[in-house]
Amino acid sequence: MHQDYFSTRRSVRKFRPDPVAPHLLDSIIERAMKAPTTGNMQLYSVVVTTTAEGKKALSPAHFGQPAVEGCAAVLTVCADLNRFVRWCRLSDADPGFDNFLSFISAMLDATIFAQQICTIAEMEGLGTCYMGTVTFNAAQVADILKLPPMVVPVACITLGYPAEEGTPTERLPLEAVVHHEAYRQDSDADIMRLFKAKDEYEPNAAYVAEHGKKTLAQVFTDVRYPREMNETFSRSFIEFLQRQGFLPK
Amino acid sequence: MHQDYFSTRRSVRKFRPDPVAPHLLDSIIERAMKAPTTGNMQLYSVVVTTTAEGKKALSPAHFGQPAVEGCAAVLTVCADLNRFVRWCRLSDADPGFDNFLSFISAMLDATIFAQQICTIAEMEGLGTCYMGTVTFNAAQVADILKLPPMVVPVACITLGYPAEEGTPTERLPLEAVVHHEAYRQDSDADIMRLFKAKDEYEPNAAYVAEHGKKTLAQVFTDVRYPREMNETFSRSFIEFLQRQGFLPK
Repeated sequence: MHQDYFSTRRSVRKFRPDPVAPHLLDSIIERAMKAPTTGNMQLYSVVVTTTAEGKKALSPAHFGQPAVEGCAAVLTVCADLNRFVRWCRLSDADPGFDNFLSFISAMLDATIFAQQICTIAEMEGLGTCYMGTVTFNAAQVADILKLPPMVVPVACITLGYPAEEGTPTERLPLEAVVHHEAYRQDSDADIMRLFKAKDEYEPNAAYVAEHGKKTLAQVFTDVRYPREMNETFSRSFIEFLQRQGFLPK
Repeated sequence: MHQDYFSTRRSVRKFRPDPVAPHLLDSIIERAMKAPTTGNMQLYSVVVTTTAEGKKALSPAHFGQPAVEGCAAVLTVCADLNRFVRWCRLSDADPGFDNFLSFISAMLDATIFAQQICTIAEMEGLGTCYMGTVTFNAAQVADILKLPPMVVPVACITLGYPAEEGTPTERLPLEAVVHHEAYRQDSDADIMRLFKAKDEYEPNAAYVAEHGKKTLAQVFTDVRYPREMNETFSRSFIEFLQRQGFLPK
C-alpha cells in the first residue's frame, strides 16, 4: 500500500472549495515535526494562510498561479533561526548563527519538514503542490507575512482536497540519477539516451510545438527559466539573505 | 498505521552488518524520484557508497561519525545541474543555470528527494540518519566522490538495518512552529515558555551538566555549533559554490 502511494503520487493544482479542518492540519504539521532536523534545533517555521484576503495578498508573489487562491491553505515554510537565536540570548548563550552555513542548515531542516508535510497530507487524501516562486520573490513574501530577521521562506505548499487527479509525472530512468561509489562520467551519447524518453514523451513534444521551439530543452532555457530571469532572482535572493542576516552586506 | 509511523519515527545511528539488497535500494530510490521537483527538472543525483573502502574514505569528511562506516550504504544526495545543462547544450539550447537561484532550486529538489528516500526506507524497515557534516566539508566530499562542476552535495543519508531503536526525539510544541496569516511576534516570556519542556527534559539537563554548562542553549552555542566553526564552514561552502559555478568569484 505504501509502495503504491509513493510510486503513483502526483502533484495536484486544482482543489475543491472545501476547507481543511484545523485539527487535521495541526495533526499533519505536528507529525511532520518528527522529521529529522539538524542537531534537533528545528530551524523552521510555517506560516499558514487560509483566509481569502491572505491568499489574495500572496498571489502576485507567486505570479498569480491559480493554486494559491484556489487552495484551502497556503503553507509558507521558512528557514528560521530567529526563534532559536532569541532562546539562546534569553538563556545566557552567545549565538553565532548569522552566517551562510546556518542558513543552509535551516533550509535543509525546513525543506525536510515541508516534504514530510506533503507526504502526510497526501496520505490523508489531500492534494499538494509546491510553488517554486517563493524563493524568486522571497522579499515580497516576507513583507506580506511579516517575517522578522533570520527567517527566510524556502518552500511554499498549496494544499487542499483535490479537484483533479493530477498530471502524471514522467521521470528520468533510475540510472540517470544513481551513481555508484563515485560520480559517473557519462558520454554525450549517454546523456541523450537518458533523456530520450523525456524528449519523446508525447505531452512534452506537444509543449515544444506549442511554444514554437525545436527541442524540449529550449522550452526550459528560453521560456520557463531564461538566464536573465534566473540572474535577476539570484541577485534579489542574495540581497534578501543579506537583509535577513545570513550573508555579509 | 501511517499515522503511527510518522508520529513515532526515530533516526537510527547504529546498524546491523547486513547489506541492503541492491534491488531494494533501487526500488526505494526509484519511488523517491516521484517526489515533487522544480519544473520536473529533477535537479539532483545520489552517489551510493556501499564498499568498505568507499565508506572509510568518506568518514573523515564526516568527522569520523561511526554511522558512516557502520551503515550499509551512504547516500550522498547532490544538487545537480550538470546533467541538465549537458542535455540543454546537446539539444541546441543555451542554459542559464550558473547562478545562485538555480543552486537554491536544485538544493530544494535534492532535499525533497532525500527526505522521500528516508521515509520510504524507514517504512521498509530500514533505519536512517542524516549527516549534517556533508555541507561542512562539501569540497572534501566532492573530491572523494569525483563530483563535476554544478554538482553540490547537500544531504547525506546513512542507511541500513537498525541495531537500535533510536533515540526518542523531544520536539517543540506545535505552537512554536506554526503561525497563522502572519509571523507572530512572541514576547521573551513566550519564547522561554515554548522552550520550557526542552530545557527541562531530563536527558537535556544531563547533557548540560556533562558539558559543564549553565543552560542547554550554551551547549549549542559553545560546544556543538560555535560561531567560529559556523563562520569557517560558511566561507568554505561559499568558496565551494564559486568553484562549482553557482556564485561569481
